[in-house]
Formats: sequence, structure tokens, C-alpha cells
Amino acid sequence: MRLGFLGLGRMGLPMTLRLLARGHAVAVWNRDPAKLADALARGARAAPTPAALAEAADVLLMCLLDARAVEEVVFGAHGIAFAPGDGKLLVDHASIAPDATRAFAARLAAANGMQWVDAPVSGGVAGARDGSLAIMLGGEAAACARARPILEAYGSNITRMGPVGAGQATKLCNQIIVATTIAITAEAVRLAQTAGVDAGALPRALAGGFADSRPFQTWAPRMVHGWDEPLAAANLLLKDVDAALALARAAGLPLPVAEEVRRRFALLDVRGEGASDPAAIVKLYS
Amino acid sequence: MRLGFLGLGRMGLPMTLRLLARGHAVAVWNRDPAKLADALARGARAAPTPAALAEAADVLLMCLLDARAVEEVVFGAHGIAFAPGDGKLLVDHASIAPDATRAFAARLAAANGMQWVDAPVSGGVAGARDGSLAIMLGGEAAACARARPILEAYGSNITRMGPVGAGQATKLCNQIIVATTIAITAEAVRLAQTAGVDAGALPRALAGGFADSRPFQTWAPRMVHGWDEPLAAANLLLKDVDAALALARAAGLPLPVAEEVRRRFALLDVRGEGASDPAAIVKLYS
Repeated sequence: MRLGFLGLGRMGLPMTLRLLARGHAVAVWNRDPAKLADALARGARAAPTPAALAEAADVLLMCLLDARAVEEVVFGAHGIAFAPGDGKLLVDHASIAPDATRAFAARLAAANGMQWVDAPVSGGVAGARDGSLAIMLGGEAAACARARPILEAYGSNITRMGPVGAGQATKLCNQIIVATTIAITAEAVRLAQTAGVDAGALPRALAGGFADSRPFQTWAPRMVHGWDEPLAAANLLLKDVDAALALARAAGLPLPVAEEVRRRFALLDVRGEGASDPAAIVKLYS
Repeated sequence: MRLGFLGLGRMGLPMTLRLLARGHAVAVWNRDPAKLADALARGARAAPTPAALAEAADVLLMCLLDARAVEEVVFGAHGIAFAPGDGKLLVDHASIAPDATRAFAARLAAANGMQWVDAPVSGGVAGARDGSLAIMLGGEAAACARARPILEAYGSNITRMGPVGAGQATKLCNQIIVATTIAITAEAVRLAQTAGVDAGALPRALAGGFADSRPFQTWAPRMVHGWDEPLAAANLLLKDVDAALALARAAGLPLPVAEEVRRRFALLDVRGEGASDPAAIVKLYS
């Protein structure tokens, strides 16, 4: 099976290298061709346009920044939609809204018959490098089954969640939990400090218990001691919580806890800290 | 060193048995003496009153239900406060408010000179049985150091958090995180269901990622599939979140996310579901 990979950025490059290491034949395309060098050196072949890559591949994997980039690469000039698509599959690793995903999938099917699987990931660059990404699939069962053995090159936890868009909706479920955990971690840290507790000892004291989680262990120390490099931007969480709330609102579902968390991150943004590490949310409580 | 254990209930009995298994000499007291049978069969000696137990022990360990029970056993008729207390230590495993704890500690010190360490636990009956409890200590450093090797009989993660009351405040930090995680798990489950996602696959899909936690893995399946036996009562979480908010309010610290979570659990109580498993919170979103 011939693979194509579009978008060899911080995530896409290590994912592509893992496909190559498994012996897959991979055609690659990137907006900035300079970023192809590492993949070409390991045996990938460069395609001049997304359409040319789609001609040369049976399964396309795409790791782009956002919905705008996806739309341009799929439907723009020399886009994937202009290549023959029958019997072919496009796997989209971007995190974009479920309704945008469903619209893209329908538009591509109408254009050239290509199938769509949404496959947002969780686990970051480290997960892409060591092949431990969680991948949440949305698409027809047969299409997801076809993608799965390929995705095992970089994903250790691959789960089909439902039809097209269900992967994206699952990622939004993931994100409201993460954002809320960070917000309540800030409240717990400030409560501890206010009550005369050694807040620096909280991660150790709560380790392994019901209050423990990766966000808690990651961000509680940053909230207590500060940080040098941001691990993420607070506004990326705000964007995801906004998308989750839009999805819920469209279905008439109120999510009051997520709404309150959204207000905290929005306030952080208003205060000019949107680009800061999410740990900055603790400053709202001073 | 002579130990005394008061309160051999669902938690206290397995804790006492682990002390006996380590070879400690343990005097025991319980309101209902019938519950002493197992401990007596393993070599514990029964004391007729808390005061008599305090006479016969150097370090007292107490695992009672709530502040009212603690007050009665310490300061009531034949209570611990009526025994000589100089050079002795009382370790309180109950979860009660930090200010009540500080008042009890001061009152006991004035009555007979006995030292107080608050030592609320996390990990439930299973943790008490297998010796994996997390124990959060509040008290003078020397008193906590004296308690630690004893507590290692049933605690695998024992952390001093500060002076008397700091253990209790830490437990409240733990509880606002647990209650919030359960509430946002309900919102994520309902968002998934509303968006056409297979919510039953959420625990597997998010396992090991940043949205994962023990409450998520415990309660998401109950929210999707229902439950037979309650693991806990929703109102116990409400009580703890209330105590945390009272502590924060007294210090002028607003905790808006925890406040919103409190409103969810209070609404559940108003609807007559306070004694239900916390998973019942998902019903608020239907």
C-alpha cells in the first residue's frame, strides 16, 4: 500500500519517520519543502503538490495546523480534491470542529469519492516520537479498520469513536477535562497556600490518589514554583473549550462547569496572558 | 512503644490488624465492643473507655466518623482528655474541618498536655487493607516524625503538610479536585453522547492521556452504563466541597470552579439523589 503524508511539522515529521522505519513507502508534501529533508534522507519521495501526492498514494495522512490549512490543502489549488479519489482514504490528524470535519468529508466525497477519517491525536511531540499517541477515530468502520494498522506506527491507543466527526468530538471531551483539571489544580494550590499548607508538597501528598492526574502533576509544581518554558499556550485550551461549548450549545446541552472554566481562561486572555503557559491561570486567584 | 487505637470500623479495623501484624502492642476501644473481636483474636487488648486506653498507650490513633464523634471521644465522659497526656500523642484520621481540628488540638493541650496530629487518609477500605493509604499530616514536625513509622503499617504515602490543621486542609484540596473531576467527567460523557460518540469507549480512548484519572476511569463507565452498588455518597463530596469553600471564604479567596461544582452536587441533593453514587450527577445533564 502506497502512503502519502502531508504536513511534516513538529508532529508530522516524527510520525512520518516512524512510518518509514516500519518499511512503508511514503510520499511526502509540505508547504515549506525544506522541512522534507529528514524524511527524504530516510527514503521518502517528495510530491510537488497535494494533488500529485494524492495521485501517488492510496492512503493519505495529514497533520496540519488548523481547519484553514486543511481546507486549503484539500480544496485549494492543486489540492487533494483534484486527484482521482475512488478507493482512497484521507486520515486527518488535525484537531478541528466536528461540524467542519463533516462538511469537509462530504465535500471531498462529492468531489472525487475519497473517504475521510478524522483522527485527532493526544500525546504531543513526545508521543509522536516514541509512538505512544492516543488517536481518536471518526469514520466508517471499514475505513477506520483500514487506517488502524498504518496508525500503529505512531499510536499505541487507537479507538474508533463513531462516524466522521466522532474523533473530533472525543478530542473536545478530552480537552474540557484537561482545561478543568488545570483550573481546579490552581484553586487547590491557592487554597493550600491560603490555609498554611506547604503547596509544594501537594503533588507528592496526592500522588496515586483520586486527585492525581498528569495535568495535576505537570501544572501544580509550575503554579507553585513558576516556569521557564511554556508547555502549551493557555489560549489553545480556551479555543478547544470554546469549540466544545459551541458543540454542546448546538445540541441544547448546558455544560456549567466547562462554562465556568471557559470564563477563567477568557479572563486570563483579557489580562494579556493568553500566550502564557496554562499555569498562569493561578494568577487569577492572587 | 504502646499504641492505642480508637474506632475499629470499616477503615479502623484493617488499620489495627496491620499494626498487630507488624508486632505492635495495641490497646483498642470501640463504642460497640462487639467490633473488637477480630483485633482481640489477633492479640490486641481491650480498654473499657477512651480514658483508660489513653492511660495504657503512648501514641493514640483514632479513626472515627466525624467531628462530633471526635469531640465526644476526646472531651466527653471518660474521654481521652481526662487521662494524663504529657509526652503522649493523638493521631486523628478523621476528615474534619481544619479550624475544628485546631480548636480540638488547643483544647486537648490545655486539658492534659497531649499533642495532636491530624492525619486524614485517602484510599478507602481497599487502601487500609493493603497498606496503600495516602496520609496527609498536620502537626509539629517532631510529632509527625514520631507518628510516621507507626503509620507506615497502613500508609504508603505519608506527607507532612504543615502545622496542625494542614493535613485537613490538604484533604479538602484533594476533595475539590475529586468532586470537580467527577462533575466534568459527567459533562464529557454527555457531550460525547450528544455528539454521536460511543461514550462507552471514552475510558479506553482517553486512557493514559492528559484527561485520564482514577475518578474518570471509575465514574465514566458508571455514568454510561449505570451502577448497582454506590461507591460513595454524592453528599459526602458535597460536604467536603462545602468545607473547602468555607475555608476559602474565611480567607477571602474565591474558588469559582469549585463553587460551580458545589452547585451541581447541591442540585443533585435537592433532587433527592444525595445518597446516590456520585455518578448520579450525570442525570442533571439529561
